[in-house]
Amino acid sequence: MVLPEELIRDGGGRIGLIVLDGLGGLPDPRRGQTELEAAKTANLDRLAAKSSLGRVQLLPVGMTPGSGPGHMSLFGYDPLEIDFGRGLLEALGSDYPLRAGEVAARGNFCTIDDDGNVSDRRAGRPPDEECLRLCEQLQSQISIDGVRITLLPGKEHRFTLVLSGEGLGASVNDNDPQVTGKAPLPLIGSDEASMQTAMIASEFLTRAEEVLSGGVASGILLRGFSTRPQLAGFPERYGLKGLALAIYPMYRGVARLVGMEALDCGPDLDAQIAMAKSHGSDSDFIFIHFKDTDTAGHSGDFDGKVAAIESFDRALPGILDLGLDAIAITGDHSTPTTLMEHSWHPVPLLLNSRYTIPVSGATFDERGVLAGDIGTIAGHQLLPLLLAHAGRLDKYGA
Amino acid sequence: MVLPEELIRDGGGRIGLIVLDGLGGLPDPRRGQTELEAAKTANLDRLAAKSSLGRVQLLPVGMTPGSGPGHMSLFGYDPLEIDFGRGLLEALGSDYPLRAGEVAARGNFCTIDDDGNVSDRRAGRPPDEECLRLCEQLQSQISIDGVRITLLPGKEHRFTLVLSGEGLGASVNDNDPQVTGKAPLPLIGSDEASMQTAMIASEFLTRAEEVLSGGVASGILLRGFSTRPQLAGFPERYGLKGLALAIYPMYRGVARLVGMEALDCGPDLDAQIAMAKSHGSDSDFIFIHFKDTDTAGHSGDFDGKVAAIESFDRALPGILDLGLDAIAITGDHSTPTTLMEHSWHPVPLLLNSRYTIPVSGATFDERGVLAGDIGTIAGHQLLPLLLAHAGRLDKYGA
Repeated sequence: MVLPEELIRDGGGRIGLIVLDGLGGLPDPRRGQTELEAAKTANLDRLAAKSSLGRVQLLPVGMTPGSGPGHMSLFGYDPLEIDFGRGLLEALGSDYPLRAGEVAARGNFCTIDDDGNVSDRRAGRPPDEECLRLCEQLQSQISIDGVRITLLPGKEHRFTLVLSGEGLGASVNDNDPQVTGKAPLPLIGSDEASMQTAMIASEFLTRAEEVLSGGVASGILLRGFSTRPQLAGFPERYGLKGLALAIYPMYRGVARLVGMEALDCGPDLDAQIAMAKSHGSDSDFIFIHFKDTDTAGHSGDFDGKVAAIESFDRALPGILDLGLDAIAITGDHSTPTTLMEHSWHPVPLLLNSRYTIPVSGATFDERGVLAGDIGTIAGHQLLPLLLAHAGRLDKYGA
Repeated sequence: MVLPEELIRDGGGRIGLIVLDGLGGLPDPRRGQTELEAAKTANLDRLAAKSSLGRVQLLPVGMTPGSGPGHMSLFGYDPLEIDFGRGLLEALGSDYPLRAGEVAARGNFCTIDDDGNVSDRRAGRPPDEECLRLCEQLQSQISIDGVRITLLPGKEHRFTLVLSGEGLGASVNDNDPQVTGKAPLPLIGSDEASMQTAMIASEFLTRAEEVLSGGVASGILLRGFSTRPQLAGFPERYGLKGLALAIYPMYRGVARLVGMEALDCGPDLDAQIAMAKSHGSDSDFIFIHFKDTDTAGHSGDFDGKVAAIESFDRALPGILDLGLDAIAITGDHSTPTTLMEHSWHPVPLLLNSRYTIPVSGATFDERGVLAGDIGTIAGHQLLPLLLAHAGRLDKYGA
């Protein structure tokens, strides 16, 4: 459902979307509790007792969202209608405004053994400075006719490759074999424009292996070839001036894709909140991204995820002090520590405004929210709901 | 979803749809209870204890329904697919069968000051007789070449303007500035046919100001220019002979739009029920509209809304005496007294038939229905559900 444009009011209250990445969890087999149930969260509990509770289903039932689709869903878009890949998100997160006609892919420096097989998919996780040095080396020593190559260094073994030229497509497979002991896969494009991309990228890989030869980082794995999708952003679509406060580049990238301003604001949530205070006063919509829950989930660190949730809880009063009129606290997907990966489970949702309906006995955790009044809504329904709670929507029809 | 036509049986039980306008509410900040929670409703409670309970979501999450879309949703139509405005509803509610090619707009008599600004958007709320007199005066003194003008008087300052002619469109803005101290806006059509309408309506306004000059009602505000949408009505679509019993014209109008017979039957709910008894015996579907809940909601009168619900409760036994086979009690939208406007919140639903599933602990109010067996359904799913409970649907497939 696309919200009819004519319902968007000029002005209204201010909205906060607080994403605890990978928030949702599962009961730990030994303790019987989920991470959110086990966490001591006095501030969240107090807020939940005067809020509406429920769940967001980011994608159709059973589907596990990547970070991009999860966030696009929370931003009110149908992720299934948006064709975007990791290369795009990485480029945007590196402050590179990927343009129409450009193709981006996520790169990993890796180690290739004498037999041509991948022996370390992350080249021993080099320090960021080494990654920067390798990117500069490749950037200065490789050029290919008819295409501009840009390398955007990332953290450790990660970088982004951007190809700019005529007639490039993005339907190209990953060359990452995903396991060690196998050779990188040949790149193949599934249409003419993508074959062109595959050819250029393959040449880049060959030349890069020559340049890198002999070091620990002796090869490159590419994945997520992608272009920038054309979207109506927050200002056009919702009349919202949005501000994103995220420590990790990718989340700033996905926010920029929908027309938010995105600020780099480490090192921690307190710094993000301080930035929201100092820079967010004229923003209609503030998106705060909190990564630690997801990181602990991926590590299978139950106590770590509990601690992350508790540290969020300690920072919550600062968020509430921002004086937002409608605020949602949820996740872009579940990352249960028992699974150590993203999962398909709906994610708990807390929504607070003057117009919410607290239900006695409902609590902000995977099971407690089932008693809440919101029920389970699709992720892309959250944004219209927030607009309503902030008084930003006219009624439909007479 | 359109119900497959071949599932509609010939015959079946009789259905009642009882709409408590604006039924849904929010907890009052001082009392903690909603209007429906605070009301003493012995009859509703008794019925709820043997009924299925849940909620209707009239429009997609976050969207607030106007009365027209709210009712169309309850009648089983997708309101987002129907383009209708207030002018249409007012015309239908005035027993005027708006035809293809005609354009209707809702009119307000207003007061224009010496500077040409609106000083009272309702011209001091004249008595109905004065409204009638003014409409007759304008009707007799204004004629415009190539178009037939019809004025349908309403209550107090309200009337409906109908333009009948060739090539008229309805994409015309409201001239109502919505606030006092500003001049009425110029009427502009957004396509050729609508420009024609705007020109004729503008001339009508100029001539009307001459006629009205000097009185308290010295000007006219127009809004909701609209035409009649083409719909398959209850007989064709559901095989239902429908009877609408509503005191306010607009609700009779929206019922007529879907092919129900609609009777004017004031002054109160008892009179409506008496009419259902005397005129409804050969109707398959009886729609009773109760307005007082919405009126109190708009006034922000918590006690008044409680009293309206309690007065409905006293009349409920009379409705149950009609001997209907399946009955739904719900609202066309929420009108919380804390908000004093329609809202986006789902509306409590009670459904009673021989085939309903009462759940212990579930009660008929905003929070109590969350425990019910129906859950939250889209408004347009209610009618198929009622058809099913009345034994009017065949199974789908072998």
